[in-house]
Amino acid sequence: MDQEIELAGAAAEGDGGRRSRGAGRGAAARRAARTGGGPGPSLPYITRKIREYEVLDEEGLSLIESNADRVLEEIGIEFREDAEALKLWKDAGADVRGERVHFPKGLCRELLKTAPREFTWHARNPERSVHVGGKATIFAPVYGPPFVRDLEGNRRYATIEDFRNFVKLAYMAPSMHSSGGTVCEPVDVPVNKRHLDMIYSHIKYSDKPFMGSVTAPERAEDTIAMAKLVFGDEFVENNCVTLNLINANSPMVFDETMVGALKVYARHNQASVISPFILSGAMSPVTVAGTLTQILAEVLAGASFTQLIRKGSPVLFGTFAASISMQSGAPTFGTPEPSLVSYGAAQLARRLGLPFRTGGSLCASKVPDAQAAHESSNTLNMTLLAGTNFVLHAAGWLEGGLVSSYEKFMIDQDQLGMMQKMAEGVDLSENAQALDAIREVGPGSHYLGCAHTQANFQTAFYRSALADNNSFEQWEIEGSKRIEERANALCRSWLEAYEAPPLDPAIDEALLAFIQQKKDSVPDAFT
Amino acid sequence: MDQEIELAGAAAEGDGGRRSRGAGRGAAARRAARTGGGPGPSLPYITRKIREYEVLDEEGLSLIESNADRVLEEIGIEFREDAEALKLWKDAGADVRGERVHFPKGLCRELLKTAPREFTWHARNPERSVHVGGKATIFAPVYGPPFVRDLEGNRRYATIEDFRNFVKLAYMAPSMHSSGGTVCEPVDVPVNKRHLDMIYSHIKYSDKPFMGSVTAPERAEDTIAMAKLVFGDEFVENNCVTLNLINANSPMVFDETMVGALKVYARHNQASVISPFILSGAMSPVTVAGTLTQILAEVLAGASFTQLIRKGSPVLFGTFAASISMQSGAPTFGTPEPSLVSYGAAQLARRLGLPFRTGGSLCASKVPDAQAAHESSNTLNMTLLAGTNFVLHAAGWLEGGLVSSYEKFMIDQDQLGMMQKMAEGVDLSENAQALDAIREVGPGSHYLGCAHTQANFQTAFYRSALADNNSFEQWEIEGSKRIEERANALCRSWLEAYEAPPLDPAIDEALLAFIQQKKDSVPDAFT
Repeated sequence: MDQEIELAGAAAEGDGGRRSRGAGRGAAARRAARTGGGPGPSLPYITRKIREYEVLDEEGLSLIESNADRVLEEIGIEFREDAEALKLWKDAGADVRGERVHFPKGLCRELLKTAPREFTWHARNPERSVHVGGKATIFAPVYGPPFVRDLEGNRRYATIEDFRNFVKLAYMAPSMHSSGGTVCEPVDVPVNKRHLDMIYSHIKYSDKPFMGSVTAPERAEDTIAMAKLVFGDEFVENNCVTLNLINANSPMVFDETMVGALKVYARHNQASVISPFILSGAMSPVTVAGTLTQILAEVLAGASFTQLIRKGSPVLFGTFAASISMQSGAPTFGTPEPSLVSYGAAQLARRLGLPFRTGGSLCASKVPDAQAAHESSNTLNMTLLAGTNFVLHAAGWLEGGLVSSYEKFMIDQDQLGMMQKMAEGVDLSENAQALDAIREVGPGSHYLGCAHTQANFQTAFYRSALADNNSFEQWEIEGSKRIEERANALCRSWLEAYEAPPLDPAIDEALLAFIQQKKDSVPDAFT
Repeated sequence: MDQEIELAGAAAEGDGGRRSRGAGRGAAARRAARTGGGPGPSLPYITRKIREYEVLDEEGLSLIESNADRVLEEIGIEFREDAEALKLWKDAGADVRGERVHFPKGLCRELLKTAPREFTWHARNPERSVHVGGKATIFAPVYGPPFVRDLEGNRRYATIEDFRNFVKLAYMAPSMHSSGGTVCEPVDVPVNKRHLDMIYSHIKYSDKPFMGSVTAPERAEDTIAMAKLVFGDEFVENNCVTLNLINANSPMVFDETMVGALKVYARHNQASVISPFILSGAMSPVTVAGTLTQILAEVLAGASFTQLIRKGSPVLFGTFAASISMQSGAPTFGTPEPSLVSYGAAQLARRLGLPFRTGGSLCASKVPDAQAAHESSNTLNMTLLAGTNFVLHAAGWLEGGLVSSYEKFMIDQDQLGMMQKMAEGVDLSENAQALDAIREVGPGSHYLGCAHTQANFQTAFYRSALADNNSFEQWEIEGSKRIEERANALCRSWLEAYEAPPLDPAIDEALLAFIQQKKDSVPDAFT
């Protein structure tokens, strides 16, 4: 078909332009597009033009809020091994018995009135700064795996080299809006020093916003110190430059490590993501309503605590929702019940006036197969439609979070691009209405060559760099490849095409000097 | 953990009960559950307790409706090679010029006032009859592929044996509510006779509702005749016993084959699913709003035509939405734009008061890999949340609809089970609120053994028969299998465990005699 060939030529040019990262349109860009190479330019954080999907009505929401109030007052939440926290709660009017804090009705909500509804999370490159809350959605990579599935197909412990690679990939992925935090655990670096290399990697190899270390209060302090070398002391104290993952030790416990990190970050005005880590049936009741009640109670306690530390410090309503298999006790992902939990939690967060974190591309599968994709897709579609503001684990998560997978990262980031397009909703402009096109083409013809198609095809549809839409015969000629094979090749081409964003050499030197001094000050520890 | 082991034992029993198909609980059922075997009992059609997701507001909906009215009046729709249709339109007040019908504003909507908003689609087993419209959702298998991917991994032309197998699988799949229509094209049977074997297979090997043949008016008549042998003459003339897929030849054409089949079915009070078959960019404009306008115009014309044939005959607002790759012209699936189209079309259908068909588990991938799963999952999640009433292609679709895949059928039907659970929404009963459980467990403990968990774990979470949630080590011991390998084994075990539903031998004989007489009356044709 002539029209198709014509379009194909034009498309290559358009695509080349999109992928060239400033190399200019034309022959070189077209060549780059044809041979794969790097991705397109980074997209700004998502501003959702679509509405939120809701699973609870006013009655249900009120019921869960009222039940959470009863949990807070009658059962209470424990803040363990932290005398300061208990004293702050006592002074605020809570009933503290041992490490158990009982909250008079309304106390937490009252304290949360000083928490910002929305705020900016600054990147060292101001163009990459993102908005947190409201209609904004931000994607960040997988967080925490000790293992990787590498490009040679090995499952092995992660290294600092892997860590750098995932930061690079997050920096390059167009719809990844943050380079994240612990994209994998670099277990080849001493446990008491690896946070330094991790924070440095985020600053050096990406210019997107990053997350701080939470594994010990002094590591949180180091994060702040390094951020100050980049952003300046005063800027850090008055702006958010790190988001920090504070997991509740569900059910109804905040431990000294998490509270310790929270205190450091809140004091420096950095954002806490208060996240009940829930495997329903183990850490919460086996029901959606019961789980939501407990999540809300835990978040109310943890989030309001940030305001005891520093009024106005940013805090997110976090939720990590999965279930367990009742046969084996193993975590399961992408199933309906955790989706209902997350939808409900998003509604509770909006009513509370806090930005919301949940979801991602979660799965239990050991390999990036259809199980991994179904579980991830069920989770990710929910994440977007729930109106989630901050999406951790948006790409790369495999095997219940034990593994960061290069191939899955590539497959997932492609899906993030789809979500970003979906969030644009329906364009109702006169051009989009296309009445002239319908008139021009008329019954029984086709739209391939019509003026409206020619004018709009470059931006009309999301283009996947990984989906194979060719004929069976063409696919067979090209080696009958599965998507993970294409993802493997694309990942290699990205890492090859990677170019670091500019970093002021003086800042780089200061960071390296700080790290060296810190590393020299204590012996290595590996546990 | 003691609790886990205890739960695991109890779970096996519960599961055995679910899977035993009347074999009774106890040792035999537990053994059956452990060894795989058949699926659980069929579930009733879905009655959605969750709300519909919407992408258009009142202004957008009115705009598209007004634009569709303009298309109908100013551009018109062609009804080709059917003098009767043109005469009926002329008599109804349309402006007919050649084969082009121009519709005065409001004519189609006025005619559609006699179409039922909801109706029953009867199965030969009354327990399997389904409700069409409103809050009901019905899943049916893939429709139309000439090829199969068989259990030996071959991609080859489909046979009548494959056809029977997919009917059996649809009959067995708990969340498949219809055995569908052309689950694959049995190309080993002459083209002018295969509809007889297909309809017979649906009646013989399943007792769920089925779809009629639409490839020629006389094949539609044969479908009616066979249905009458099962349901009785009068019942068929006054009730819906077949749903029938009437594709528009987009843009803006209904051809003589489709109109011929529509006329037969509408005259006999059988349901027509008026479905614009849209690959945006080829059969419709490259924009969502333009595509929706054309879809609405086509459905208004086709659906209202059923009421010219017989007032009150059931008709569905159908939509098949995909896009094309602007590089190659190839169809693409699971991308954001067709999802927006389908969400919008569902809203337009509800406003029109017609049951809605869209979605399924669509994909372009050649194999059931992560591409297939992502594309299918994006489509299927949308399908459920859009509030779709009839879901064709809900399982088994591969390679843009060219292939019926056994393995993908099994993977998809598992996802249908998840959708069915999701549709139940959030239980807010006192038991589900679980306040006593939260109180009993308290901070720092776990819910594995608590009374509430013991009382609720059997029905708490959707249980996938295909997802592997085991540890990496266990998964490796079991052969490091991908989900399609497990799907292959499960499919074999189902087909082995299959037992036909009872069929009155007199009806069976009458059907076979009818088929023989029909087959003897004309020579075979293969084109």
